[in-house]
Amino acid sequence: MNPPEFQLSPPPDTNPIFGGERWKKVHQALGEPLAELPSKSWEVVEAEKAKDMRHVLEFPYNGEPPPEKLHENLITPNQYHFVRNHGGIPTIDSSQCTLIVDGLVNKPSEMGLSVLQDGDIFRQQSLIATIQCSGNRRSELLTQYPAEGDDMINAPWEQRAISTAKWTGVSLRDVIDYCGGFAAGGRHVELIGADTYIKGNTPLNYAVSVPWAKINADQVLLAWEMNGRPLPRIHGGPLRAVVLGSIGARSTKWLYRIRVLDQPSMSPVQRVEYLFFNHQVSKANGDFKNGMPILEMPVSSAILSPRSKDVIIHEGTIHVRGWAYSGGGRWPEIVEVSTDDGYSWNTVPDENLTPKHMFALRLWEIKIPVSIEGWIDLKCRTFDNALNTQPSSAREVWNWSAHVTHCQHRVSVFSIDKRNSNTAKQLENIKAQGKGLVPVTLPARFRDAETGSRWHEPPELQPRSAKDDHT
Amino acid sequence: MNPPEFQLSPPPDTNPIFGGERWKKVHQALGEPLAELPSKSWEVVEAEKAKDMRHVLEFPYNGEPPPEKLHENLITPNQYHFVRNHGGIPTIDSSQCTLIVDGLVNKPSEMGLSVLQDGDIFRQQSLIATIQCSGNRRSELLTQYPAEGDDMINAPWEQRAISTAKWTGVSLRDVIDYCGGFAAGGRHVELIGADTYIKGNTPLNYAVSVPWAKINADQVLLAWEMNGRPLPRIHGGPLRAVVLGSIGARSTKWLYRIRVLDQPSMSPVQRVEYLFFNHQVSKANGDFKNGMPILEMPVSSAILSPRSKDVIIHEGTIHVRGWAYSGGGRWPEIVEVSTDDGYSWNTVPDENLTPKHMFALRLWEIKIPVSIEGWIDLKCRTFDNALNTQPSSAREVWNWSAHVTHCQHRVSVFSIDKRNSNTAKQLENIKAQGKGLVPVTLPARFRDAETGSRWHEPPELQPRSAKDDHT
Repeated sequence: MNPPEFQLSPPPDTNPIFGGERWKKVHQALGEPLAELPSKSWEVVEAEKAKDMRHVLEFPYNGEPPPEKLHENLITPNQYHFVRNHGGIPTIDSSQCTLIVDGLVNKPSEMGLSVLQDGDIFRQQSLIATIQCSGNRRSELLTQYPAEGDDMINAPWEQRAISTAKWTGVSLRDVIDYCGGFAAGGRHVELIGADTYIKGNTPLNYAVSVPWAKINADQVLLAWEMNGRPLPRIHGGPLRAVVLGSIGARSTKWLYRIRVLDQPSMSPVQRVEYLFFNHQVSKANGDFKNGMPILEMPVSSAILSPRSKDVIIHEGTIHVRGWAYSGGGRWPEIVEVSTDDGYSWNTVPDENLTPKHMFALRLWEIKIPVSIEGWIDLKCRTFDNALNTQPSSAREVWNWSAHVTHCQHRVSVFSIDKRNSNTAKQLENIKAQGKGLVPVTLPARFRDAETGSRWHEPPELQPRSAKDDHT
Repeated sequence: MNPPEFQLSPPPDTNPIFGGERWKKVHQALGEPLAELPSKSWEVVEAEKAKDMRHVLEFPYNGEPPPEKLHENLITPNQYHFVRNHGGIPTIDSSQCTLIVDGLVNKPSEMGLSVLQDGDIFRQQSLIATIQCSGNRRSELLTQYPAEGDDMINAPWEQRAISTAKWTGVSLRDVIDYCGGFAAGGRHVELIGADTYIKGNTPLNYAVSVPWAKINADQVLLAWEMNGRPLPRIHGGPLRAVVLGSIGARSTKWLYRIRVLDQPSMSPVQRVEYLFFNHQVSKANGDFKNGMPILEMPVSSAILSPRSKDVIIHEGTIHVRGWAYSGGGRWPEIVEVSTDDGYSWNTVPDENLTPKHMFALRLWEIKIPVSIEGWIDLKCRTFDNALNTQPSSAREVWNWSAHVTHCQHRVSVFSIDKRNSNTAKQLENIKAQGKGLVPVTLPARFRDAETGSRWHEPPELQPRSAKDDHT
C-alpha cells in the first residue's frame, strides 16, 4: 500500500489527518508484543494530549498544538507540547528505569533513575528550552514542490512542530564524568531509546548521536521532569535526552542506553533520515553519503495569527502574533513584519517580545498600520544575535527531504478597512442582508438595501466633480 | 569640510580613494606628537602593505587586497591582509611592550610581552582564523540606498575586507587565570589599544569589550605572530587581540590594557559605532540605545571572479571563484552558484572548497555550464553547519550604519558563447577589425569584413526554410 498522497494539495480535513496504516500493519505482522502497540499508543495520546491537537499522524503519533495554545505562554503546557514519535510508546516503570552507559568511557556503568536523581551524586538543573522538529513548516515546501526524503515524509507540519518547556534533569557531561570521562577515541555519544523504529520492515531501536563538544558545553540534558511534572509517557517518560538548540531528532526519548563511539552513530536516523541536501539533489540523483546530518537549527520565525485566507475587518491596524527562534544557543534579537510580502518591514517593539533565553523561542505580537484593502501578504522575519536572518521564499530552501523550512513565513489575508466609508456602508448592507464575509471564497453578491441594485454592478458613471469633463 | 560624497555612485577612481582630510586636520590641530601621525602612518603602509592593495582610506588607513590575492591561498599573505584602522599607527618597541590587566580580576597585574611568550607560564597556541570587518561588502548597500551611521562611513568596501591568517599567541582565558580569575561581578572584558580614536574632535584610546563567555570558551587570543612572522606594525604589532568568529572591531590592535568590567565598555566603538539597526531606523529617528552591538558575524559569501561588468568569452562554462564564511565558530557546508539571479543553484563540489576550519572562511571555485548569451546575473550563497543561509538581496539587509551586508552576492557579466557559430564568426570579424569587446560599454559597430554591411543592420529577411512561408 502506497503512503497517502498529500503533497501539492492540502492534507485531508480529518483529525487524525493520517492513520499510519503501513506502520500499523508492520507492527501487526511482527506479532506480540508489537502488534498491540498502535492501539496502546493511541490510548496514551488520548490520556496525555489535548483533543484539539492537530493529530498529523495517528501512529507513530505526530501532533502539533493549535496556534493560540502555542502563543498563549512561552511555556507550552504538556498536553499541547508538539509530539514527533517514530514508533510506539514503550511502557517503562520509573522504579525499573535504568540507564546503561558504555562504549568509550573509562568506567562503563549502569544506574537506576534514582541514582541520577540523587542530589548528592548529581547536580540537578532546570532550564527553559525549545524543541523543534526539523520538519517544522514542511507544508510550505510541499504545496509548491513535492519532496521525498527516505521512505516517506510522515508529517506535513504547519508552523507548530515547535514547543517550549522547563526541563529538569542532569547534564550528560556530569554523567560521563561519573563514568570516568571519555576514553581515548570517544568522540560521539549515541543516545538509544526503548521505542521501536521501523526501517523498511525491520524493527530497530531509535538511536542517534551527538558530538562530544555539545556534551562538554553542557548542551545535553537527561530530563525526567517537564514543567514540574514527571515526564509524560508520550514525551519519553521516565527519561529522555534534551539536546539544546539542535534538531528535535537528537533528543532521544525513553532513553535507556548511552554508548560512546569513535564516529557518529550508524543508525538510520543519523545516516539516512535527518539529512539536508543541496538544491540539486533529488529523487533522481540522491545519495545519502552526500547529505549533511542536521544538528543545530538555523534562525526562523512564523506567524501564528492571523491564519492564511482570513478575512480581517479592521480600523487601520492588523494584530499579528507569532514565534521566533534560533538554534545553537543563539536567540532572536529583531523580529519584523511586512504587509507587502517583504518589501518593507515593521519592527516588533522590544516590549512585545517574551524575554530572551539562550535556548528558547520568543513569542511576539505587533499591531501594524494597514490602509490597503484587498489581498495583502503578511510576512515575518527574524535576525538573531549573530545577525543571521531568513531567506525570503520557500523555493530558496527547498530540499529533497523537506527539512529545515526556515524562510520568511508568508500568510495571505483579505484586508477590509471599515474606516473607509464605502466599506463601512457595504459592511452594513451585508449585515442587513444577514450574510457574512467568511469564508473569503464566498461571493459578496447581494441587493443593495437602499437602491435595489447589485453591488457588483457599477453605479451609473458620474463626473468626479463639476469641473471633471473628461468622462 | 564635509566628508567626500561617494554614495549612490562609484567611489573615485584613485588609489588611495579617499585621503581622510578631516582626520588629518584634527591630528594637526591637536599638535605634537599627533600632528605627524598621518604621514608617519603612511610610511608604515608603504613599508608593510603591497602597492596593489585597494587603499580605501589613506588615513586612518583602510585597505583591501585585490581579488586574486585573496583567492590565491586560504592564508592571505601579511602584505595583502585587509586593514581597517581607526587612528594612527603607534610606535611600540617589543622589548618595552607591557600589558596591564586590571578591573574585576582577583590579582591585577602588569606583564611584559616576554612573560606572555614564556612557555613555562603560558601555553602558546597557533590557529587559522579569519577576520572580517562588519562593513565588508558595504558598497552593495550604498549604491542602492545611502546610509550614515555615526559621524561618517569611512570605507566603501567591496567584498574583500576579510582575510585569513595563522595567529600565534595565548588564550586570554589563561591570562585571566594567571591574574587570579574573574572577581565577583566581572562579566565583560575591555580591550584597550594604544591607537588614538577621534570622536568628534576628542582623542580617545581605541576600546571595546567582549563578554566573558567568549573568553571562557577560549575564543579570544592575544597574538604576537601573524603567519609565522612578528605581528606587523600596521596589524597591531607587537600585540593584538584576535576575537574568533566575531566582528573585526573587537580584535583590538596595539593592545596595552585589559580591564574587566561589570558591563560592556562605555567606548564609542561599543556603544555608538558598531551597532546594527532594524529596517525602520534611519537619519530621522536613530537612537543609539536601540542599536544592537554586533558581535558574532552571520553566514556570508562573495564572488571574487569574474567581476561585475566583465565580458566573458567562453565555450559553455564560466569559471567562478569566491569565498564563504560564517561567524561564531560555524563554517560553510554548502556553497552554490546561480546563473539566473538566484532562481536555480549549482552546487560547488566538495573537493573545490578549501578544508573546514572552525573560525576560517573557505575558498571555492566552480565551472558552471552556461549557454545563455548576453547579460547574466551570477549569484552565490552559502549554508553553514547550522543551516543558516543568506537573504537574497541587499535591500533586505540595508541598515542605517551599513554594517553586515551578508545577502547573496550578485555580479552581472556579459556572456559570449563562442560555440555558437554566429558568435564565432562575429568574434573573428571583430578581431579582423582590430577591435575589442572590452569594456562592455564599447559599441560593437563595425563593417562586416566580407559583405561590407554593418552588423547592427539586419540582413535581408529570408524564409527560415523552404517550407516556411509565414514571412
